[in-house]
Amino acid sequence: MKILLKNGSVVNVFSEELERADVLIENGTIIGVGDYSDEPADKTVDLSGKFICPGFIDSHIHIESTMLSPIEFSRVTVPHGTTSVVADPHEIANVCGTDGLRYMLAASEGLPVSVYFVLPSCVPATSFDEAGAVLSADDLAPFYSEKRVVGLGEVMDYPGVLSKNESVISKIDSAKKHGAIINGHAPLLSGKDLDKYVSMSIRDDHECSSVEEAKERIRKGQRVMIRQGTAAKNLCDLLPLFDKPWSDRCLLVSDDKHPADLLTKGHIDDAVRIAVANGKSPIIAIKMATINAAEHFHLADIGAIAPGYIADILVLDDLDSVKVRDVYKNGKLVVENGSALEITEPKVPEELENRVRGSFNFKTLCEKDLTVDCNEKRNCNVIKILKGQILTEKLVCNIDFSRNNGIDVENDILKIAVVERHHATGHIGLGFINGAGLKSGAIASSVSHDSHNLIIIGTNERDMLVAAEHIRKIGGGLVAVDNEKVICEMPLPIAGLMSDEKADVCAKQNENIRNAAHKLGCPTDVEPFMNMSFVSLPVIPHVKLTTLGLFDVDNFSLISLFAD
Amino acid sequence: MKILLKNGSVVNVFSEELERADVLIENGTIIGVGDYSDEPADKTVDLSGKFICPGFIDSHIHIESTMLSPIEFSRVTVPHGTTSVVADPHEIANVCGTDGLRYMLAASEGLPVSVYFVLPSCVPATSFDEAGAVLSADDLAPFYSEKRVVGLGEVMDYPGVLSKNESVISKIDSAKKHGAIINGHAPLLSGKDLDKYVSMSIRDDHECSSVEEAKERIRKGQRVMIRQGTAAKNLCDLLPLFDKPWSDRCLLVSDDKHPADLLTKGHIDDAVRIAVANGKSPIIAIKMATINAAEHFHLADIGAIAPGYIADILVLDDLDSVKVRDVYKNGKLVVENGSALEITEPKVPEELENRVRGSFNFKTLCEKDLTVDCNEKRNCNVIKILKGQILTEKLVCNIDFSRNNGIDVENDILKIAVVERHHATGHIGLGFINGAGLKSGAIASSVSHDSHNLIIIGTNERDMLVAAEHIRKIGGGLVAVDNEKVICEMPLPIAGLMSDEKADVCAKQNENIRNAAHKLGCPTDVEPFMNMSFVSLPVIPHVKLTTLGLFDVDNFSLISLFAD
Repeated sequence: MKILLKNGSVVNVFSEELERADVLIENGTIIGVGDYSDEPADKTVDLSGKFICPGFIDSHIHIESTMLSPIEFSRVTVPHGTTSVVADPHEIANVCGTDGLRYMLAASEGLPVSVYFVLPSCVPATSFDEAGAVLSADDLAPFYSEKRVVGLGEVMDYPGVLSKNESVISKIDSAKKHGAIINGHAPLLSGKDLDKYVSMSIRDDHECSSVEEAKERIRKGQRVMIRQGTAAKNLCDLLPLFDKPWSDRCLLVSDDKHPADLLTKGHIDDAVRIAVANGKSPIIAIKMATINAAEHFHLADIGAIAPGYIADILVLDDLDSVKVRDVYKNGKLVVENGSALEITEPKVPEELENRVRGSFNFKTLCEKDLTVDCNEKRNCNVIKILKGQILTEKLVCNIDFSRNNGIDVENDILKIAVVERHHATGHIGLGFINGAGLKSGAIASSVSHDSHNLIIIGTNERDMLVAAEHIRKIGGGLVAVDNEKVICEMPLPIAGLMSDEKADVCAKQNENIRNAAHKLGCPTDVEPFMNMSFVSLPVIPHVKLTTLGLFDVDNFSLISLFAD
Repeated sequence: MKILLKNGSVVNVFSEELERADVLIENGTIIGVGDYSDEPADKTVDLSGKFICPGFIDSHIHIESTMLSPIEFSRVTVPHGTTSVVADPHEIANVCGTDGLRYMLAASEGLPVSVYFVLPSCVPATSFDEAGAVLSADDLAPFYSEKRVVGLGEVMDYPGVLSKNESVISKIDSAKKHGAIINGHAPLLSGKDLDKYVSMSIRDDHECSSVEEAKERIRKGQRVMIRQGTAAKNLCDLLPLFDKPWSDRCLLVSDDKHPADLLTKGHIDDAVRIAVANGKSPIIAIKMATINAAEHFHLADIGAIAPGYIADILVLDDLDSVKVRDVYKNGKLVVENGSALEITEPKVPEELENRVRGSFNFKTLCEKDLTVDCNEKRNCNVIKILKGQILTEKLVCNIDFSRNNGIDVENDILKIAVVERHHATGHIGLGFINGAGLKSGAIASSVSHDSHNLIIIGTNERDMLVAAEHIRKIGGGLVAVDNEKVICEMPLPIAGLMSDEKADVCAKQNENIRNAAHKLGCPTDVEPFMNMSFVSLPVIPHVKLTTLGLFDVDNFSLISLFAD
C-alpha cells in the first residue's frame, strides 16, 4: 500500500527548515521525501497550502489522571495530533500492582496513539501509606523486555536517592542495566543535592517552574520536560527555553490533564500553540514536541518526516493556529478533517479485566469507624486546604468532641477519612479539614494520591458512610451525598481511576460532580475532588492524611491527631 | 577515591557555555560540577586558567588502518584527548572473520581509549573477491550481546541495499532487532536512491565531500560524520556544517589515519583545531567531538562534564590551540602534561593471538604462477593509478608478451598480482599497472583492501616472488625487494595488518618503506603502498584486480586481461 502526500510544506526537524516536498509512504513507513510527483501510488492526497509535521509526542503523562480508558484517551488526543505518549502507569500500579501494568499494556496495544511506558518507580510513594501493591526492582525487571517499556518512571523519592535508600537505588540500577531512560521528579532540588540526584543517571525532570531552575538542570545534563497540564501549567514561565540552545534539551509534556481540558484546549498541540502565540518559532516548538522526545527515549523511528521513519504524520492548516486537520498513524488515516476515525478495541484478557475492575476490598464501615474515641475538647492538628494548590497547611484548632463528634460546619472544620480499600486491613485514618467548605452532606473518591484509598470529607458520619458504600457499589469513582442520598456520581470502574465513558460524557460527569460539591457548600474557587485527592499524598508538604493517620511531611513522620 | 579538579573553565556541551566550576569525581564518575571548593578529596588539582572538556570521541575509525595494535593506538591517541572511539574492525574481519572480531574485543579491553565496535557489514566487500571469511547476519548476531558493540558498520554495499539483496537486508534487520545503530557509507548517493538507502534506517554517513551533499543527508535524518583522515580530508570543505542547526547533526571522525599523522597532527583534536583555526566556535566543535557522538550511539554516560557521566576529562591550555595537557579516563590520570602514563596490557587468549598471527595460508609460488600464458602482442586492459586518488582508470595497451613476460619498465607497464592468501585456493589475479613507476625490483603488501590478499607490483617476477615469500616469513607486512634482496620491510604480524611496534617506530618504518619504493623509481608524488592497497578494492571505480582477475567496477563484473 503506497500513499503519496503531494505538495505540502514539510517541517524538517533536522534542518529546521520548511521544505516544499511530497511524502511517499509504503506499508506504514515514510520511504521518500522530495519530488515524487510522478510516483504511482494507491492513494494520492494533494496537500497544497497545507503543512506536514511529525506526530506529537507527550513525553510524560499519567493516562489514569485523564480518568479516561486508554482507548478513549487515544480517541480524544489523536485529533489533537498526539501519535505517541510515554505513560507512567503509576496510579493503576498503586492499586493493582503488576496487574495494573499488564492491563495498561494490553489496553493500549495497537491504538492510534502509541503508548510507550516507563515503569512506576515509587509504589507506594512512602512506607507511611498503604497502597494496593509494593513494586520492587525485581517486580519491575521483567517488564523491561516489553517492547513498549522504555524507562523507569519519575523517581519522586529524591530523599531516598540522596540517602542511597536500597530500594530506590536497586530500581535505578536495574533500569540502567536494562538500558532504560530514568525519569526524574525533584521540584526545586538544586546545587549539590541536584548533583547527587542527577549523578544517578536521572536524565530529565518535568517539575521545573522557573527558567533558572530549568537551566541549571540542562547544564547538569538533564532534559527538561516543559509541562502544561490541567493543574500544573509551567509553559508560560518557561518560554525562554523555546530559544537555542535550551530548546534542544527540552520536551513537552502534560503530566496530568483532565478530560474537559483535553477536549477543549487540546494536548501537546495546545503547548505548541501557546509557544507560537507567544512569538516562539513553530518549527522549534514542533521539534520539542517530536524528535527531541523520540531521541531522548531512543525511539529511533518516530519523531520526524524522513525516510525510514514511521508515517506518524500531521496535516496542519497553518503553523500559527497549529490546528490539526488530518492525522496518519503508521501511514493509516486515523483523523480526517479533525475527527477521529474508527478505532479497533484492544483485547484485554478477561481475568485481567476482572481483576482490575474488582479492585475494592474493604470491610463494611459503621459510624464508629469514622468516629474519634474522645468526648472532650482537645487541641487538634487540622489539615488546611489551600486554594489552587496541592500543598496543605497545618492548623491547630480546639475541637469539642462532645458536639457532632468534633465536626464544626459553621467554622468549616469537617471530618476527613482515608479508608484502606485494597487489602481490607481495616485501617482508617481520621482527621479534620479546613477549607473544603461543605455545609451539608459528604463527598468521597477512590482517586486519592498515590495509594488511591477511599477518601471522604463530610459534615456528618452517616453521609460519609453512604458515600463510601456507594463507591464500593459502583466499583470506584467520585460521589456526592446529601441527607443519606447520592446526589451525584462519576463512576470510575477501571481500578477506581478510569471511566468506561466517552470523553465528553466524562467531562460532563466531572463538571456535574464538581457542581454538586459546590452546591453542598464547597467554595467555587476550590476544586473539591482535585484538592481532596492530594490530601492523602504524603510527599507534598505540609500535613496529610493516610490510612495510618496524620502525616507531617516536613518531618516525614506520622503525628497524632491531638496537638495538646 | 575522590578527585577534585578546582577552578577550571568547564565546556558545557548542553548549555554551550563556559562555566567556572570545580569538578568532583568519585570512583571514576563525575558526581558534582559547581562550587566544591571546600569539598575534601583524596586528590585536589588546581586548574586555574585551564579549560576542561569531555574526552573526544572518534565516531568512525578502522584501527587496523593505523597499522598500530589497539594498545599502541590508545597510547598514541589518548595524549590527543581521544577517550573513546567507535571502531569498525572491518579489515581484520576480512582476514580472520569472527576470530578477528574477538581479537579486537579482547585486545582493546580496558585501554585508556574505550573502544566501542560496530560490526563489519560487508565481509567480503563483493562476491568477486576472496576474503578470509564470509560474515553473515547469523555470524554477527551473537556479537550484539557484547557490551561494547553498538552498531552495524558502514553499509558500503549500497547497490545491495537498493536492490534489496537478501544478505545485506538480513544484516540490517538483525541490527535493528538488536537496537543497534546502522552506519552508512554511500558517497554521492542522492535524491530517490538516497531515500531508499536511508529508509533502511541507515542513520549516518562519513563519505560526504560537499556541504550540499551533507545537508541533503541531514535533511533526510542522517547524522553526518565529518571526516579528517590521512587520505580523505573533508573537513575544510564542510566547515559550514560547524554552524547551527547543522552542527547538531554532525560528528567528527578520522576513518583511516596513518601513524605518522596521528603522532604529528593528532586525531580528533586536530579536527577541532582546524575548525577553530577557521573561525568556528570551539564549544560547538567540541560538542560535535563529544556529546553528539555519544548520543548518536546511545552511549548514555560519556560525552559531557556533568553529574553521572564517566570522568573522561581533558584539561586544555586554551580553546584556540586545543592543546591537550592532561587526560582523565574513568577518573584516572592517564596523560600528564602531554605524555601518556603506563597502560596495562589487555589479556588476549593465546590461541586467539596465535590464530590472528598465523593468518597466512598460500602455496609457495613459482615464476610461472606470476606469468601470463601468452607469447605474442596483445591489446590488454591495464590499471592506471591516479595520483592522490584511490580511483583508477582503465587503459588499453598493446603488450608484447614475448619480451619480459609483457613487463615494459620503460613505459611504466608493470606486472601486478593479487595472490589469495587465506585458504590456499591457489587463485592469483594477474594484470598490468601503469603509474607505479618502479624502475627495478618489486613491492608487496599484505594490506590490500578489503580482502587483504597479497598484492605485488614488480618489474620482474623473481623479485615479486622474493617479496611474496618474505611477507609470508614475517607474517605479513610491507616489503620492498631489489635484485632478489629485501631492501626494506615493515612487519605487520597481527593479521598482516597491524604492527607490534610503537607508533614512532611504525611511522619511521612506514616512511622508510615508502622511501624504498621511491628509490626503486616510484614517483615521489605517488603513495606507493597506499595506492597499491586500493587497487584490489572492487567497489571503487573504475578497474581493479582481485584474486579472480581484472574487475570492471562500473559494470560490476570480471573482465578479461585481453582487450582484443
